[in-house]
Amino acid sequence: MAFIVQKYGGTSVADVERLKKVADKVASRKAEGNRMVVVLSAMAGETNSLVELAKQASDNPDEREMDMLLSSGERITIPLLAMILKSRGIDAISLTGRQSGIFTDGAHTKARIRNIDTKNIFKWLERDHVVVVAGFQGYSEEVDSVTTLGRGGSDTTAVALAVALKADQCEIYTDVDGVFTTDPRIVPEARRIDRISYEEMLEMASLGAKVLQTRSVEFAAKYNMPILVKSSFTNGPGTWVTAEEPSMEEVLVSGVVYNKDQAKITIADVPDKPGCAAKIFDSLAHHNINVDMIIQNVGEKGLTSISLTVPSDESKKALSGLKGAASEIKAREVLLEENVGKVSIVGVGMRSHTGVAARMFRLLADGGINIQMISTSEIKVSCVIRKDEIDKAVKLLHDGFEMEKEKTVK
Amino acid sequence: MAFIVQKYGGTSVADVERLKKVADKVASRKAEGNRMVVVLSAMAGETNSLVELAKQASDNPDEREMDMLLSSGERITIPLLAMILKSRGIDAISLTGRQSGIFTDGAHTKARIRNIDTKNIFKWLERDHVVVVAGFQGYSEEVDSVTTLGRGGSDTTAVALAVALKADQCEIYTDVDGVFTTDPRIVPEARRIDRISYEEMLEMASLGAKVLQTRSVEFAAKYNMPILVKSSFTNGPGTWVTAEEPSMEEVLVSGVVYNKDQAKITIADVPDKPGCAAKIFDSLAHHNINVDMIIQNVGEKGLTSISLTVPSDESKKALSGLKGAASEIKAREVLLEENVGKVSIVGVGMRSHTGVAARMFRLLADGGINIQMISTSEIKVSCVIRKDEIDKAVKLLHDGFEMEKEKTVK
Repeated sequence: MAFIVQKYGGTSVADVERLKKVADKVASRKAEGNRMVVVLSAMAGETNSLVELAKQASDNPDEREMDMLLSSGERITIPLLAMILKSRGIDAISLTGRQSGIFTDGAHTKARIRNIDTKNIFKWLERDHVVVVAGFQGYSEEVDSVTTLGRGGSDTTAVALAVALKADQCEIYTDVDGVFTTDPRIVPEARRIDRISYEEMLEMASLGAKVLQTRSVEFAAKYNMPILVKSSFTNGPGTWVTAEEPSMEEVLVSGVVYNKDQAKITIADVPDKPGCAAKIFDSLAHHNINVDMIIQNVGEKGLTSISLTVPSDESKKALSGLKGAASEIKAREVLLEENVGKVSIVGVGMRSHTGVAARMFRLLADGGINIQMISTSEIKVSCVIRKDEIDKAVKLLHDGFEMEKEKTVK
Repeated sequence: MAFIVQKYGGTSVADVERLKKVADKVASRKAEGNRMVVVLSAMAGETNSLVELAKQASDNPDEREMDMLLSSGERITIPLLAMILKSRGIDAISLTGRQSGIFTDGAHTKARIRNIDTKNIFKWLERDHVVVVAGFQGYSEEVDSVTTLGRGGSDTTAVALAVALKADQCEIYTDVDGVFTTDPRIVPEARRIDRISYEEMLEMASLGAKVLQTRSVEFAAKYNMPILVKSSFTNGPGTWVTAEEPSMEEVLVSGVVYNKDQAKITIADVPDKPGCAAKIFDSLAHHNINVDMIIQNVGEKGLTSISLTVPSDESKKALSGLKGAASEIKAREVLLEENVGKVSIVGVGMRSHTGVAARMFRLLADGGINIQMISTSEIKVSCVIRKDEIDKAVKLLHDGFEMEKEKTVK
């Protein structure tokens, strides 16, 4: 008997037939005597069609109204699941974000959870109900409005609820069998990982593996809540995301991830004097642009070049901001290169093994791939390369680090 | 400068293009300096498709969950209208039923408004916002859930808000040009009525004219709130629904309405002794069936026949209930006749003019139409006739009472 929070994503609740399969899973766990809280996303495609309506309504839809609109999606899936469960004789109740006591700040479309008042959920759990919670949404008392937590926010709802309710574990059901050593569409030999640390998962999520929302992993790490990621379509064992364990270090590299949604911008011939770099980054911060990697090459005659990468969909905005800054500081020109991407290796094993980065660079060089930029952390090495060489690089690294082979985890 | 509550029905908000037309209307009235509260329904078809999903989920969907599901529809239209208005520089905010302070009893799917806390709406009106309210829904604190007011409930939302906010008038925008003397699909000469009394409107609504939800008219009558019913697609003057005025009595008959969704049930050879009729109606009340007309024919040998009409979709349920009762009281048989309908004339003029009913019966008789049952009120006469003769009867009565001619209303 355990206390379980489950979350089912959009593809798992895409229609009533699939919701009935979700009900099967929930019912069987409930029958074992577990306490069950089930977080649902909107039906796959629903959020996109709501966004489409908003675009038709306005070029720049008001964010408060956007949240009102988007929060309607989960109000469709949660009562449907509760109906199905009730029609099978299982007591169930659907609760909106507000009814679930999920209170956020007032930052519409990207709100953060401030506190969770668990009273109402516990009231229904004590009446032996399955509690079906609307993911992705909360309520801000500050602005007296519904808010949403951003794309993938239902993961965060589930983990935050699991923490607040002191559940035993949080199960995230999605359309893949768990976390893989790399993208199986590129490397068919990619292997499902049994157990991965929060830190590795965070690096992988932020580098582009779309299994879990980054913030949900941060939350789980902070409160040490074990997450099980598994498929709602198969009966595979999935991947446990947990605190780091000694055995994890025996694996040199846990995964290869990539990100093709990158653009590189170079500001050429920047006068190498104090304040110039500050002007450049001020102009980006001013436009709320996330800069990822930065390199600076000192050249001749007191001139330097600064290159940086930004998400593709922000490149135009970044470019116009940087052109302004460049003319102000009298840099020669600003160049945008869109044919770039990032490939990274991740693993807590890097802490205890040396030479991992060198081996990565050699594998890429042997494959004839030129590295344009590099960044590293304690458990990650990332390289910017040409976008059209990403797939090849992923294969080379997966093979080179022998990641298709199951490692002994004691 | 006036304080106006407007309501737009499902066909008026069926897509973003139509919502933009609604925004045009709202904007022009706002520009005249009026205070505006706008109540919206869900997009036409949306409620039906949600009901369809619920049917797929369960044969007998839980009503509390049904309300959660159905209340998602207006959460799509209200933020879209607010977005459109804001993008045109008009301050606007969308509010759910709960945020609008609409509190109901806990009777899911057919809740009644208990009280309206106008604080929040006034807060936004004082900030010079157009307040866009979700129709059809409220919140019950008793059951801590969203509730819905039944089909057509947005009319009631609009009228109840107009009353609670002490607005000057309530405008109901729909897909017809106002209230007509009869159904223009049957009688092309049907004439739009300029002004009709609450009582006439109530009779017409409850008899089957689907322009306004009955309860909204009761509400308006109780608080003397003038309602203007008009088309959101044309610029016609519409119909005012107001308290009775002396001039209205000059019109003999205001409208002819009909209802084809009727069934007649006859319990034949009922022993004519105390308690038998009670048994019969107890069995119907027990199944929550609305009986409309009742006639009893006393026959020979202490036996009597009782005929009654019920809505078509309840006829099967009524039949099985009545068969039980009939065998208990030893009635000979229970007969269902589905080829029946009801045609009615309505008008406050009947109070001051005699012979209206007789003239109706003569017109039908001259047309060769046999009357099976009759019921009357102060301002209405209804006849049950064969369903396949309804259209003919409507034409005969509309012609016979010369309703195509505009009456002088002083």
